[in-house]
Amino acid sequence: MLGGSAVHFALAASFFTEVRVVGSVGDDFGSEPLELLASRGIATEDIEVVPGGETFSWSGHYEHDMNVAHTDDTRLNVFAEFTPKLSASSQEAQTLFLGNIQPDLQRDVRRQSSASFAALDSMNLWIETARDSLLTAISEVDCLLLNDAELRMLTREPNLVKAARTAIDLGPEIIVAKRGEYGAALFTEEVAFAIPGLPLENVSDPTGAGDSFAGGFLGYLDGVRIGDRPDQGALRRAMAYGSVMASFNVEDFGTERVRDLSEDEIAERLAAFKRLTHFDEVPVPTTG
Amino acid sequence: MLGGSAVHFALAASFFTEVRVVGSVGDDFGSEPLELLASRGIATEDIEVVPGGETFSWSGHYEHDMNVAHTDDTRLNVFAEFTPKLSASSQEAQTLFLGNIQPDLQRDVRRQSSASFAALDSMNLWIETARDSLLTAISEVDCLLLNDAELRMLTREPNLVKAARTAIDLGPEIIVAKRGEYGAALFTEEVAFAIPGLPLENVSDPTGAGDSFAGGFLGYLDGVRIGDRPDQGALRRAMAYGSVMASFNVEDFGTERVRDLSEDEIAERLAAFKRLTHFDEVPVPTTG
Repeated sequence: MLGGSAVHFALAASFFTEVRVVGSVGDDFGSEPLELLASRGIATEDIEVVPGGETFSWSGHYEHDMNVAHTDDTRLNVFAEFTPKLSASSQEAQTLFLGNIQPDLQRDVRRQSSASFAALDSMNLWIETARDSLLTAISEVDCLLLNDAELRMLTREPNLVKAARTAIDLGPEIIVAKRGEYGAALFTEEVAFAIPGLPLENVSDPTGAGDSFAGGFLGYLDGVRIGDRPDQGALRRAMAYGSVMASFNVEDFGTERVRDLSEDEIAERLAAFKRLTHFDEVPVPTTG
Repeated sequence: MLGGSAVHFALAASFFTEVRVVGSVGDDFGSEPLELLASRGIATEDIEVVPGGETFSWSGHYEHDMNVAHTDDTRLNVFAEFTPKLSASSQEAQTLFLGNIQPDLQRDVRRQSSASFAALDSMNLWIETARDSLLTAISEVDCLLLNDAELRMLTREPNLVKAARTAIDLGPEIIVAKRGEYGAALFTEEVAFAIPGLPLENVSDPTGAGDSFAGGFLGYLDGVRIGDRPDQGALRRAMAYGSVMASFNVEDFGTERVRDLSEDEIAERLAAFKRLTHFDEVPVPTTG
């Protein structure tokens, strides 16, 4: 079914700002997914359709508690020969998200973009097989998003706070550790911020949750025109929106839930999220 | 070194309320630990010293990221023959915490206690080897605290929200899922509440973190004399205090950090905890 980093990200971000997708598909992709993206106002002109090519595909399965994903099959197909080409409009976008792909391709896109704020996602595969290239790609962005286990693997540091600090030393000012059902944590030089996952009764398919998170997070930051240096308050709200979009993503298979969301549903869930985490601060009772 | 559920719990709870410990040790225990407990105002008269007996001991190791504990050795020693006897003062305590031990012993203590609010912790060992007895013990308390993996195992339900609901059907009105470095979640029939773990740079020893959490949680509820039915606000603050006490616990080996805490340190960390999780709610920006 329809999926992929770019699709999940774009759909989530489209609720907050204008989105342009850069990518490559085969002519097996069909017009329906492009129409779906366009129906959410997403510009698809930089999605290259390779004649006779087959679209990238991934299949996998999840363990019992859905916290661990296993890849059964990955077919690069058209991605094996992918050379990203950004149109003038895409080059001028203020915010850039480099979805999980071979890090040299991410660097190529970064070079073509004049974005004042760039974020990058990656995965264990590239940490293991293209480490040097990935480290360079990371040094060229402002924000790094990774699963917490991947952040530990990248930095070779088991403690998450130290891992985040090591990652900041690589270049980005903002590190986001995604934690699946446990939420996410954000680190800058000055602050740490953490949110739990929204407890969900219906978890059908975690695939794409990280990209939906990134879409809500960066879409919000871009939508409010935060500029090059998002302040703390904006980062915190962006994290909450990221979690909200990820929570919708997992409630149905593929893109089914997010594509038909309403802004009211997003606002309601943000309010639920705030209720979930809110507590009053009171003095410690003394035992005398 | 000194440890154990009762010790970690009692030390943490002693910052919020009066605590009485019921337990059994060998005469190898020595007077120093008893003096330590007494120095925190903890009543130790119900700690039975078995002449010629050896104190329960546990040894284990943690995986690289400290999220997974492995037991190397457990010696029941005096616990093998333990018959808890509560003094009149302990019987009259308003709040009862049944630390992790064989569930028939927990039931025995519950029967001797007139507490209006009782909570129980357990572990995978009893879920596997004494399931029926544990289910009965759980049905006799108001609050169940378990690791989230154990809660899933107990209820045979991989989804945490459904697991919590199933656990509520067993009897307790309040279910607390402890999640290690990821914080904790609380469920009642009406509400869910979740907090992330405080990101800590120094994690020396997670042993006892769950009991320190329980000590902060129940100690706070008892200290503010919440009565039989803690309201939502109290439960939320209690969760925050539980997390704060657990965060101190892991920063040093054994009981070293918690025993010498000041109330100012607790208040400071609660404030840090609130800053960590706080975000402002704002309307979703519309894309027009």
